[in-house]
Amino acid sequence: MTDDASSDPTPDPQAAIDSQGDRREDLDDRVFEHSAGDEQEGIPFIGAGPGNPRLLTVAGKELLEAADLVVHAGSLVNSELLDEYCGHAELVNSVGKDLEELIPLMRDAYEDGDDVVRLHSGDPAIYGAALEQMDALEHEGVPTYFVPGVTSAFAASATLRTQLTLNEVSNHVAFTRPQGKTLSAEEDHISDFVEMGDVTTCIYLGTHAVRDTMDRLLDDDHDPETPVAVIYHASWPDEDVIVGSIETIADKVEEAGYRASALVVIGDAVTGAGYERSYLYGDWANRGSEGASD
Amino acid sequence: MTDDASSDPTPDPQAAIDSQGDRREDLDDRVFEHSAGDEQEGIPFIGAGPGNPRLLTVAGKELLEAADLVVHAGSLVNSELLDEYCGHAELVNSVGKDLEELIPLMRDAYEDGDDVVRLHSGDPAIYGAALEQMDALEHEGVPTYFVPGVTSAFAASATLRTQLTLNEVSNHVAFTRPQGKTLSAEEDHISDFVEMGDVTTCIYLGTHAVRDTMDRLLDDDHDPETPVAVIYHASWPDEDVIVGSIETIADKVEEAGYRASALVVIGDAVTGAGYERSYLYGDWANRGSEGASD
Repeated sequence: MTDDASSDPTPDPQAAIDSQGDRREDLDDRVFEHSAGDEQEGIPFIGAGPGNPRLLTVAGKELLEAADLVVHAGSLVNSELLDEYCGHAELVNSVGKDLEELIPLMRDAYEDGDDVVRLHSGDPAIYGAALEQMDALEHEGVPTYFVPGVTSAFAASATLRTQLTLNEVSNHVAFTRPQGKTLSAEEDHISDFVEMGDVTTCIYLGTHAVRDTMDRLLDDDHDPETPVAVIYHASWPDEDVIVGSIETIADKVEEAGYRASALVVIGDAVTGAGYERSYLYGDWANRGSEGASD
Repeated sequence: MTDDASSDPTPDPQAAIDSQGDRREDLDDRVFEHSAGDEQEGIPFIGAGPGNPRLLTVAGKELLEAADLVVHAGSLVNSELLDEYCGHAELVNSVGKDLEELIPLMRDAYEDGDDVVRLHSGDPAIYGAALEQMDALEHEGVPTYFVPGVTSAFAASATLRTQLTLNEVSNHVAFTRPQGKTLSAEEDHISDFVEMGDVTTCIYLGTHAVRDTMDRLLDDDHDPETPVAVIYHASWPDEDVIVGSIETIADKVEEAGYRASALVVIGDAVTGAGYERSYLYGDWANRGSEGASD
């Protein structure tokens, strides 16, 4: 992925940014040389987890504590986490800054020998927009790598005291987002996931669209009493849980006044009730040809 | 959720186990009183993360280090993690033990004043079978709570140096499992997820069924060249990555000899190529009514 750009006396951030999405036919050698969680050369793109500083990974904590420069996702990251782990680092809020500003900033600090960390919220593989920055940095000769994190859906399910999969209730989980500025109506699969009947549907980036989303589900004749939970700022000190159904949740969310930063979970698994014993223990474990691999 | 069972001189583990799946109509008060990641009273059900000890959460590490008894998921948890964090604890492997054995074991230790931890692999909300143990313990008067973790799909995407969602490539993510002993053909939605075209499909508990799964996708006329990656033991020292397509991956997995403990990822996001700049930075961030909330 790296090239000779770093030895060029006049590196071209614009070419780096234009190169996003262009990759070699073969996967990067580092895919095979490193395991996730390994220390690697370069700038780590770290998942901060859902918010609570205790839900950051050990790797993320160590990298933040050693960092000279932390470029973070602004209000999407709980400031308690920055206070706790980044006391000695320069902090830069990425919100409102475009790649043309962020890439040279991170590149120059890295080339000056600073330990640079890019901190995204949740897990960077889920609606993270990390890869475009990583590819642009790689084009400039700066190596990068991912450090995974806990996504907000897992904090939400922990708060709800339930599982997203639950024997005889939910067999699958979808992470999805609703139609809007960046997703067409045809690309909105929420109704398809709910239709399947045994999927727990976790909607990211959809707090502002709860009423529209629920109205579409009612138009598609889904059971109005299907449980829905909305978890605002899962794991943050101001975490809030609203529970209802496809029919009732929009009123409740509007009454609470949330327009962003909440996760919407649709499906019977929300209640944690009605499941059957898994037989993961006992007979099944002794006979099974496959162990759990989550 | 707790009741008076703990004051009964002869608590009945069988009644506790039979009560699984029975819950009150209303959600537990603790849903509203606690945020995920908080320290709580009782036995924590901790997600160990994908394997690498550095991908455990800070909360998980602290709880393990303070534990007197750790009931863990055997070979599903990387032994390096137990070595690193559980040096002073009694370790019990849950594999092959049924609830009738595990519940009294954890209850008695907790009632004796021990710090007890239940350690699941990955995140316990994903194919975790944690809730049936928690409800049985609660019925016995022992409080419990979840501590979320990093799921193996996030370690797999970090290893692959890609995102599971990727602008104009993949808008959604499905965590799913194939039909077999515990899932009927009608409950197998893998082909439906692949059919949507913009879903990254992550198959758990399906290593042994890769050929059957790919054969069904070919029967359903999906593009044989759709990228597929199989990540064995994501983030473990013996992590292995196999890349191919719907048409080629089964031969490669069989040649490698894996029958368990791998994650199968289907979709164009596997390659990390071909995406469009998200405009999360610059115009979009300045105009957007919704911030990323992962």
